[in-house]
Amino acid sequence: MSPSKLSMSPVNGTELVAVNDSVVPVRRVTKQAPHPLVMIPGPVEFTDEVLDAMKTPPQAHTGPAFTKTFSEVLRKVRLVFGNEKTAGGQGIVVSGSGTLGWDFAGANLITKPDSDKVLCVSTGFFSDGMIECLSNFVADENKQITVLEAAVGETVPLHDIKTQLQKDNYRLIALTQTDTSTGVLTDIKAVAELVKQVSPETLIVVDAVCSAGVEEIQFDNWGLDFVLTASQKAMSTPAGLSIMMASQRAIDHALSVKHKKPVYCSFNKWLPIMANYEANKPSYFATPSVQLVTAFNVSLNQILGSDPIVDPATKIPKSLLHRFAVHKNVARSLRQDLLQPQFGLRPVCNNIDDCCNGMTALYVPDDVKVPDVLAYVSKNFDISLAGGIHPKIASKYIRIGHMGISVTGQSAADVKRTAAAVKLALQAVSPKAKL
Amino acid sequence: MSPSKLSMSPVNGTELVAVNDSVVPVRRVTKQAPHPLVMIPGPVEFTDEVLDAMKTPPQAHTGPAFTKTFSEVLRKVRLVFGNEKTAGGQGIVVSGSGTLGWDFAGANLITKPDSDKVLCVSTGFFSDGMIECLSNFVADENKQITVLEAAVGETVPLHDIKTQLQKDNYRLIALTQTDTSTGVLTDIKAVAELVKQVSPETLIVVDAVCSAGVEEIQFDNWGLDFVLTASQKAMSTPAGLSIMMASQRAIDHALSVKHKKPVYCSFNKWLPIMANYEANKPSYFATPSVQLVTAFNVSLNQILGSDPIVDPATKIPKSLLHRFAVHKNVARSLRQDLLQPQFGLRPVCNNIDDCCNGMTALYVPDDVKVPDVLAYVSKNFDISLAGGIHPKIASKYIRIGHMGISVTGQSAADVKRTAAAVKLALQAVSPKAKL
Repeated sequence: MSPSKLSMSPVNGTELVAVNDSVVPVRRVTKQAPHPLVMIPGPVEFTDEVLDAMKTPPQAHTGPAFTKTFSEVLRKVRLVFGNEKTAGGQGIVVSGSGTLGWDFAGANLITKPDSDKVLCVSTGFFSDGMIECLSNFVADENKQITVLEAAVGETVPLHDIKTQLQKDNYRLIALTQTDTSTGVLTDIKAVAELVKQVSPETLIVVDAVCSAGVEEIQFDNWGLDFVLTASQKAMSTPAGLSIMMASQRAIDHALSVKHKKPVYCSFNKWLPIMANYEANKPSYFATPSVQLVTAFNVSLNQILGSDPIVDPATKIPKSLLHRFAVHKNVARSLRQDLLQPQFGLRPVCNNIDDCCNGMTALYVPDDVKVPDVLAYVSKNFDISLAGGIHPKIASKYIRIGHMGISVTGQSAADVKRTAAAVKLALQAVSPKAKL
Repeated sequence: MSPSKLSMSPVNGTELVAVNDSVVPVRRVTKQAPHPLVMIPGPVEFTDEVLDAMKTPPQAHTGPAFTKTFSEVLRKVRLVFGNEKTAGGQGIVVSGSGTLGWDFAGANLITKPDSDKVLCVSTGFFSDGMIECLSNFVADENKQITVLEAAVGETVPLHDIKTQLQKDNYRLIALTQTDTSTGVLTDIKAVAELVKQVSPETLIVVDAVCSAGVEEIQFDNWGLDFVLTASQKAMSTPAGLSIMMASQRAIDHALSVKHKKPVYCSFNKWLPIMANYEANKPSYFATPSVQLVTAFNVSLNQILGSDPIVDPATKIPKSLLHRFAVHKNVARSLRQDLLQPQFGLRPVCNNIDDCCNGMTALYVPDDVKVPDVLAYVSKNFDISLAGGIHPKIASKYIRIGHMGISVTGQSAADVKRTAAAVKLALQAVSPKAKL
């Protein structure tokens, strides 16, 4: 059952290869050890250069080489989020996962645990995770946490958010830009505009774990206060870094009140460290991961280019705006391909305008079992895909990640190969499919 | 000023090399990119195999390859701490630093924030960091946190600990095995025996960041409840992993009370995940770092051997007991060498029996400036050493790390080279030294 390596002539810029009786796009060529093509919604495939940086020899974490690296990273983190240093705020990069960013938000921004109120907008499993996390930072979650929950595959209507904001004074609003369980994209710009109109004192917190580097985030222009992401998705670096951006307003608010919080997610502990490293001065609170931060720097250079030109309107580097456009095009093509009616797939995200650009969640036909699809693409095409994770629909859908070098490299060969594999899998495992 | 590469004949198993006018041991040979020899108390030098594992290509974090790796790691973490699965408890490995382990201890073991009392034994800067951390998990640290603080370079007398334990009911006692700011080793076995006699209900928490893998830890035999360490010291893996071992008693206690805690350091969240991975079943809460965990597995195999034989008395693998002995011998030799009176160095650790085996803190002579010593060994021998960090004496001493492959590899050539470099530095920068 192993694929034939016979290369075919290119079609639309993509080399083809024969696998058993079928012809599918060949995967992106790398210098990496042979491994299944990872097309889950993170971790993603990495470039050779990023992986090479993972084996950076040891460096003293307060020595000049690493200090320079970390300084570069922290300056580029601002660019990723659309923040200018003159606007204040601080990028934060610590060992951890995206989840840790939720604790940072709760521990630092909820300064009055007995009275602060939080408005949560849920579009799926990960939004719910953030809500559960934030609930731990208030005394009475029944009184202090309000949840606006979208139906599966839907967004929460702006009108509902507006109505709720008018009803009470919220210390913060928590949003998930892309919920990785549904592929639903929340319109952060629109919600932020609403908050500024109706409740300008409310801090805006955005989970961008599956969106930073794929979807537009204009941190300064939209007036966001805390955005969190992780290294292993569109930041295209191995997992292990929690990456955050805090506004000056969020920092001033957090530091204005002395309240107890865990040290590992404390602004008080980390902000001076980050400010120092950014200014090329070593500083110590907890030992950073030299190798992960160095690999992240290589990835940021690849994402932003060596000397990025910032678009004055969005405050986002033009290279990153281009990256967004490429991801959008590839996501659209993938959906157009897989949603052809004969395959029987349906998007979990109900409205095409709400679909995110870094992953796709698809219901399989009723007579198809998700594990059969995943096993088929794994066994026959050596591709790792993900099953469902939203508890209401978990067994009914698959998830395909399309972020980073698999999208931007070699005419998105990895994505095209994945689409072909999914279609062949459906043909093979579905008794009813008329393909 | 670059060292001559002319190799000399070996002395005591160590190759010598001419550097300017001096002859010093040649550093350990590696396949790694040229880099300063890192002899700080963590991060340490890594083996080529561990660094190679850092560039493991992407793997799905719930796929079979990574699940097997993580299962192996979690089983070996028990061995590192002297725990048998039949005794219960759970190893925990998450993205983070050693510091995160303090939050785990506070968040999970202090279940009654309004009344639980904590006895803290301080032997330096890092003990004080843990105390500050734990203070955030009690309502009134003045009433609930008791600190027994040793004079700089001393341990806290057992008698003082006993007296304090008899005065009050402590939920937990917090100890630092090696305080990296002083090099003072606390006798965990003796304190644990005392706790079992005087206050058996008190949970025993040990910071082993700079000791696990160097100093003996008999988790089961000594009745420890929570031991925390990090990847970048004697675990000999790049920074980025927080590594912990919780006793069954600690787990039962933590889970017996429903109390609010940050999700990222919650036993409730992580324990089922760790138990599943250990049983070779994938499980998801937050994305683990495939590359760091894989590198840690390689390091554990090198530390423990491929099929470790556990010593029945200590429950520690014989390979690890041998590693402790090697570290002790090298540490003793280094101290004997550097503490020869003509160099004017004095140990920060006052009593030779209290000195740890993974690092050495040394006061420089009064007429010598620490930055001059560090700069000299950096410039002339390409070795990174650390300055002081204990606030009371920070400017007066240097710290040398001696953990991992620099100790166990090639007759400890790295350590011998470092000792030679320090002696030559003192000769060069001290106007009074009669060498």
